[in-house]
Amino acid sequence: MTEAATKRPAPATERAIAALAARFGNKLVTSQAVRQQHANVTTWLPNEPPDAVVYAASTEDVQAIVRICAEHHVPVIAWGTGTSLEGHVNAPLGGVCIDLSGMKRIVAVHAEDLDCVIEPGVTRKLLNEHLRDQGLFFPIDPGADASLGGMAATRASGTNAVRYGTMKDNVLALKAVLANGEVISTARRAKKSSAGYDLTRLLIGSEGTLGVIVELTLRLAGIPEAISAGVCPFPSVEAACNATIATIQAGIPVARIELLDALQVKASNAYSKLTLKETPTLFLEFHGSNASVAEQAESFGAIAAEFGGGPFAWTTKPEERSKLWQARHDAYWAVMNLRKGATGFATDVCVPISRLAECVVATQADIAEMKLIAPIVGHVGDGNFHVSVLFDPNDAEEVGRAKRFHERLVERSLSMDGTCTGEHGVGQGKRKYLLAEHGEAALAAMAAIKRALDPENIMNPGKIL
Amino acid sequence: MTEAATKRPAPATERAIAALAARFGNKLVTSQAVRQQHANVTTWLPNEPPDAVVYAASTEDVQAIVRICAEHHVPVIAWGTGTSLEGHVNAPLGGVCIDLSGMKRIVAVHAEDLDCVIEPGVTRKLLNEHLRDQGLFFPIDPGADASLGGMAATRASGTNAVRYGTMKDNVLALKAVLANGEVISTARRAKKSSAGYDLTRLLIGSEGTLGVIVELTLRLAGIPEAISAGVCPFPSVEAACNATIATIQAGIPVARIELLDALQVKASNAYSKLTLKETPTLFLEFHGSNASVAEQAESFGAIAAEFGGGPFAWTTKPEERSKLWQARHDAYWAVMNLRKGATGFATDVCVPISRLAECVVATQADIAEMKLIAPIVGHVGDGNFHVSVLFDPNDAEEVGRAKRFHERLVERSLSMDGTCTGEHGVGQGKRKYLLAEHGEAALAAMAAIKRALDPENIMNPGKIL
Repeated sequence: MTEAATKRPAPATERAIAALAARFGNKLVTSQAVRQQHANVTTWLPNEPPDAVVYAASTEDVQAIVRICAEHHVPVIAWGTGTSLEGHVNAPLGGVCIDLSGMKRIVAVHAEDLDCVIEPGVTRKLLNEHLRDQGLFFPIDPGADASLGGMAATRASGTNAVRYGTMKDNVLALKAVLANGEVISTARRAKKSSAGYDLTRLLIGSEGTLGVIVELTLRLAGIPEAISAGVCPFPSVEAACNATIATIQAGIPVARIELLDALQVKASNAYSKLTLKETPTLFLEFHGSNASVAEQAESFGAIAAEFGGGPFAWTTKPEERSKLWQARHDAYWAVMNLRKGATGFATDVCVPISRLAECVVATQADIAEMKLIAPIVGHVGDGNFHVSVLFDPNDAEEVGRAKRFHERLVERSLSMDGTCTGEHGVGQGKRKYLLAEHGEAALAAMAAIKRALDPENIMNPGKIL
Repeated sequence: MTEAATKRPAPATERAIAALAARFGNKLVTSQAVRQQHANVTTWLPNEPPDAVVYAASTEDVQAIVRICAEHHVPVIAWGTGTSLEGHVNAPLGGVCIDLSGMKRIVAVHAEDLDCVIEPGVTRKLLNEHLRDQGLFFPIDPGADASLGGMAATRASGTNAVRYGTMKDNVLALKAVLANGEVISTARRAKKSSAGYDLTRLLIGSEGTLGVIVELTLRLAGIPEAISAGVCPFPSVEAACNATIATIQAGIPVARIELLDALQVKASNAYSKLTLKETPTLFLEFHGSNASVAEQAESFGAIAAEFGGGPFAWTTKPEERSKLWQARHDAYWAVMNLRKGATGFATDVCVPISRLAECVVATQADIAEMKLIAPIVGHVGDGNFHVSVLFDPNDAEEVGRAKRFHERLVERSLSMDGTCTGEHGVGQGKRKYLLAEHGEAALAAMAAIKRALDPENIMNPGKIL
């Protein structure tokens, strides 16, 4: 039981909770179990529960909660599915969690316009099941079945981003409740606009610190006529990265291009019952017409061969494809299986692709030198990779090594013009790196924007800034 | 001679000009001709010249100018090539224009990463000439040979946006001088990041009201292996729009898909010596491998035929392609040639593509009813179209009709969930539409951000808000 879980709320918070109880009845919950479930549970950061959880069913509910909390100067934390990896949903200063998981209406699908309007609690899988019959899909796939509101709030991406972009590229417009309780609508449904400041993109990635997202208008893609996918082994990480660069430079519109290092392949072989050669390997997928996916796969195979890779085994059979991507999605569980009882955390640096091989190789050397068990998977078409660091949380010396490893990884990424987080967000875990990444003037501008929109600092305080 | 051009500067401005003269010598110009050239010259908005023009050669120059102006509370207006259509470069409150056209260094091209770093005065054509030998290009093409700093500031797009996106999708990072004289760097060169607020996108489209862009890191594309292009006549605007929707839904990655209405085709036939059938027509371009561009063109031809369009004549020959796109680029001059001595202004609404045919047809009916000469061209893959309204500026009744036509067009677009400006920006001309488009709460949020970053309102005042 954490200290925060048993602490009595501050008097102002108690007054806010009383007002919320009057409005929300049994939609307001203060039990310890529910509060703890609504704080960070996915990584090594501590669980810091809110003082209360309110289940919102509508935009008006969210407005009412924010207004009551604003009146009492009490923090407000938005919650979707809790799959965040950086403590975004923790309540270090206490406060009220708004559970948006019940707001999961698909408000409209505009098939002709390739867009849809949804509530923030709709998850990726729920949306894609709804869209399938219309031949459409939402391409952003971070692995977890996250809520789309949460994906927007953290500027998520994942395996398809190399072709389809990130959340910033796939949200046309959104509605958000600001700290003053007002709802803003950031844009119309037109595909593009030059009408004023881009509030859409300002809210995307703001992690609930500027407003609570209550509606999203998303861009959709047509389900491709054909999909080909395959696996290609390489003699080294450099060879795999260089083949990736050449593939992208050649203009092959690859839909997914994922690196697994040799240790990750070993872990996935064991967990997902694969028989891959235990060497750096690319998993790939191509979308297009039948002719085009065959052409893309063959062009890639030729490039791979130039860099000593291959044979490139590819298929258009759905069942084989599914097995492959299930193994990729299960990479995290495969890693956890390498060392039973260990805790894991995922790093998330992203560098210009030309520096990727150098960055991964130096990181592997660091892993060996620091005697860590830490496989690597990467969205290499974007220069983004994750190291899954396994450690014993009760071994202070090992925890220290794991932390030092992460510091050095972030420093390495920044020295290569990269970022401390490609897609997981800042949350609590990466605040300390933002000064080195952005510099004082840019951070001051972010802080000025935060103060302008949330002068009392009630929106998810203790995150990003 | 406009009144503003002959007016004596305010005392504070005179002090600022004296301080600038001491720092910049003959790089500071106050002659009437130069001042007038640095205000709006491209459309029907009045020419409102600044009190002085300073030619900046470096980021430090821009910082010095902004600091001096801030000290004296004098407006600062950034200027690139002056091709803006909405009075962005006018100085309604006087002030100092920063001419950035001399800042045209291409700082770095990172071919492996498909990006480059440039100064804001680099124009689109200059950059593409520089890149050609490396097999790369920057795909955003608004027609004019605009400065890339100006294109970022107005969130420009153009004919290639349907495939490559707008400036918001093609700027990886930027540097800007804020009202306090500090330089911010908005992001690293990594292809994606979740590290804090998206200052890049906040500055893009802010029209110089939040900061002066002094450096851009742009995403580049590989010059496609093959390009096919062609012209397809349709029996009606609806048929052309419906074929466009079907093309995009089919996932054909069309690079350009441009509508010309019958009057525009007539104008272009006369001006560009073409022999096209005078009926609604699509101009198209496809990028990819040899096999892929042929497949795309053939797939489009089949779709066009379903909607009664065609024959679709296409080619991969560069000279024929160039002639076609030169005619499209010259559409403005062809229009002006329809009525010698007239003034023209270009509207810029953008609607969801499903509403496009209805919007264009209703607009044509309005043009007929209001007895205007006003051909239409459209980036129809994005739902964006321009009406070029020709009128006699000395005929008050006709000017009134042209203005009423524009009001009705914007209302129609907004009623269809569209925007008053797809790519030209707000400037002075469209400020009055923002309340209807965004609502009070969103405009208040924009104003709060403006105050937070520019409390004295010195950055391009009188624009957007």
